Amino acid sequence: MSHGSTAKPIAAIVGAGRTKFGELWYDNPEKLLFEAGLQCMQSVDKGINRTQLQAAYFGSFLYQSTNKIGLIPGHMSKELGLNIPISMTEAACASGGSALYNACVSIRSGLHDIVFVGGFEKMTDRANLISDDLMFAADPNEVNAGYTFPGLYATMMARYMYDYGKGNEDCGDAMAMVAVKNHHHAMPNENAQFRREFTVDAIKNSSIVAHPVRLLHCSPVTDGASALIITTPEKAKEFTDDPIYIMSSQQATDAISLYSRESLTSVKTTKLAVGAAMKEANVTYDDIQIAEVHDCFTVEEVMFLEDSGFYKTGEGWKGVYESYESGKGSKHIPYLNEGKELIVNPGGGLKADGHPVGATGIRQVQECWAQLRGEAGGQQVDGDIDTALAHNIGGTGAICTAHILRRNI
Amino acid sequence: MSHGSTAKPIAAIVGAGRTKFGELWYDNPEKLLFEAGLQCMQSVDKGINRTQLQAAYFGSFLYQSTNKIGLIPGHMSKELGLNIPISMTEAACASGGSALYNACVSIRSGLHDIVFVGGFEKMTDRANLISDDLMFAADPNEVNAGYTFPGLYATMMARYMYDYGKGNEDCGDAMAMVAVKNHHHAMPNENAQFRREFTVDAIKNSSIVAHPVRLLHCSPVTDGASALIITTPEKAKEFTDDPIYIMSSQQATDAISLYSRESLTSVKTTKLAVGAAMKEANVTYDDIQIAEVHDCFTVEEVMFLEDSGFYKTGEGWKGVYESYESGKGSKHIPYLNEGKELIVNPGGGLKADGHPVGATGIRQVQECWAQLRGEAGGQQVDGDIDTALAHNIGGTGAICTAHILRRNI
Repeated sequence: MSHGSTAKPIAAIVGAGRTKFGELWYDNPEKLLFEAGLQCMQSVDKGINRTQLQAAYFGSFLYQSTNKIGLIPGHMSKELGLNIPISMTEAACASGGSALYNACVSIRSGLHDIVFVGGFEKMTDRANLISDDLMFAADPNEVNAGYTFPGLYATMMARYMYDYGKGNEDCGDAMAMVAVKNHHHAMPNENAQFRREFTVDAIKNSSIVAHPVRLLHCSPVTDGASALIITTPEKAKEFTDDPIYIMSSQQATDAISLYSRESLTSVKTTKLAVGAAMKEANVTYDDIQIAEVHDCFTVEEVMFLEDSGFYKTGEGWKGVYESYESGKGSKHIPYLNEGKELIVNPGGGLKADGHPVGATGIRQVQECWAQLRGEAGGQQVDGDIDTALAHNIGGTGAICTAHILRRNI
Repeated sequence: MSHGSTAKPIAAIVGAGRTKFGELWYDNPEKLLFEAGLQCMQSVDKGINRTQLQAAYFGSFLYQSTNKIGLIPGHMSKELGLNIPISMTEAACASGGSALYNACVSIRSGLHDIVFVGGFEKMTDRANLISDDLMFAADPNEVNAGYTFPGLYATMMARYMYDYGKGNEDCGDAMAMVAVKNHHHAMPNENAQFRREFTVDAIKNSSIVAHPVRLLHCSPVTDGASALIITTPEKAKEFTDDPIYIMSSQQATDAISLYSRESLTSVKTTKLAVGAAMKEANVTYDDIQIAEVHDCFTVEEVMFLEDSGFYKTGEGWKGVYESYESGKGSKHIPYLNEGKELIVNPGGGLKADGHPVGATGIRQVQECWAQLRGEAGGQQVDGDIDTALAHNIGGTGAICTAHILRRNI
């Protein structure tokens, strides 16, 4: 396949790995990262040696509170047995995306040719306290006002349904259909936390968490790790005949507090980061076939579809509803719009694959890498997949990273 | 002044600021960063507008545990009113140095021309629990074995004195003289936490913390923030006729656990980072006149003098002793070796200026910037100062960043 695009790749992925996601009671962060890292090293077609790594970036959110560890560069220097520059980025649920963004900056700088990127979160050890810790990703005034994360997203979801659903029950169904679709997509995913089908009614009748958010609108608490090796585009073929190119890498920020934002029904950082990533990669939705989207709550996937320009503002829910009705029963249920087709979260997304916070942004790119290479196992999307987008959000959208990946350049 | 050096600058500092360091009970991290940031913006000779900033990097260590905040990119987007890429680095006591290292990578990448760098730590709110939190920067096995940070440095200091002091009491005096010198240097520093002279005997007779480390061998618990604005060397003169150039920026890592290291009396990451920084800047100690050194415990400053190559291995303490005896009474007490002269921590270092962990690495560079411009106030070093080194360590040396700065290129 060839493209009219004149954009040049900024980096290439030559290896990727991940652990199973779930409640991994017998593992600690180092073991999870070791497992993801080893799989990542072993996935390099022509082989790579640990000592070839020139720098590393890691992302995690709650490692200090939850795992009582800090100074991750020192931990990872010990695990890798290397004295290379290692940096740690924290950006709540976008910690992984931010690590990859900064790893790409490092490749762009010309300082390093071969960079390791890892993300992890070991959340279950903290039991119920994790809900409190997660509030570090919100504004202290929101915390003091009694907000939880489901509550913050409930504010967005309620406002979205009020502004755009206008009492139409199909809008509520659409919020459930995102979950049904992503759970359906996860069925063949051997690494997924949940492999279980749900009906629209089951989602709508699950326990209330913060009206209108119900339990099955939410992504879970998860343990897991993920890893990538990126190189310069020029060096990529030394490691594999089938590298996946990073065509763009963008990061945008906005006020941490929902009450300071321009809109409750739109995430500005998605607009900025995805918009800039499409521009940098010189692509539109005519090119993008699959997207890994940050569906921490189902409304977030609906807002993504609008903020990224796939559907018009306020019409995302209708697109979701109609696409689901037209696609249900298929292995993958694509979103449809004026002849365009987009498969979102082909392996189940945060909702069903799981959401080990710091690992998510890198797991998304690992999934795209596997899909683009045709190696995604049971959840492999049918047909030739050439271009993918990964979208990772922190907090209620205070930060967003966007990466566009391509197989054929 | 001109140099034989052929190295080109990688970035330029066009503004710098800091708060007072100390027990700042009425401030929170945002207020401290605001104060340092505002001073930094106002220090730009030809003026700068907030909206000219293209990216930002922040460093802090214990903000989650101590201040119950996370997702710093979202907090800072709100404070700055900007949607630019903002990244947060954590590297324990080298969080600030790591933020600057990554900001320099961002400048090197060509992605951004004008980058804001901030460091902060608000430690006193946590009262006695801060000692526990600080252990996140050590290996969990060390924590479980009952180690504290003074205990870890006591292990290094005891071994150093055993291996190289061999019972000579002058070695113990040298460990005290580092503190006496740095407290003396801080006397005119209006921002310093402690402006009080101590005698060698006062240091040696202060309360025991972890033998042989006594209270006055330790840097304090401190609140504070610091900030820099860096640009490309080409753009620097748009902002000031007197930019300070960053000639090199390096970061090295080693195992987090002291028990995994090659030596207890030497910090490998200092050797690697400072060595690489000197090579990148194409300088030796014939060029470097002042150094901001990570004197978290006085033995660390002695080890720096050896690891960076100023003194031979095992002879640092003798150099410290002799230099102190020869220099005491002067405004600054330089280290002397074979005709070379090096002023270390001209404003008091971590020991007396204070050590708000994430702010330290950036405060060091702010001090160098002020010294090189001849604007360091009461603690200004006499004579023309042209080249400076900043050395920032995390944990017991699991990470080190080194930056070499120069006024005339």
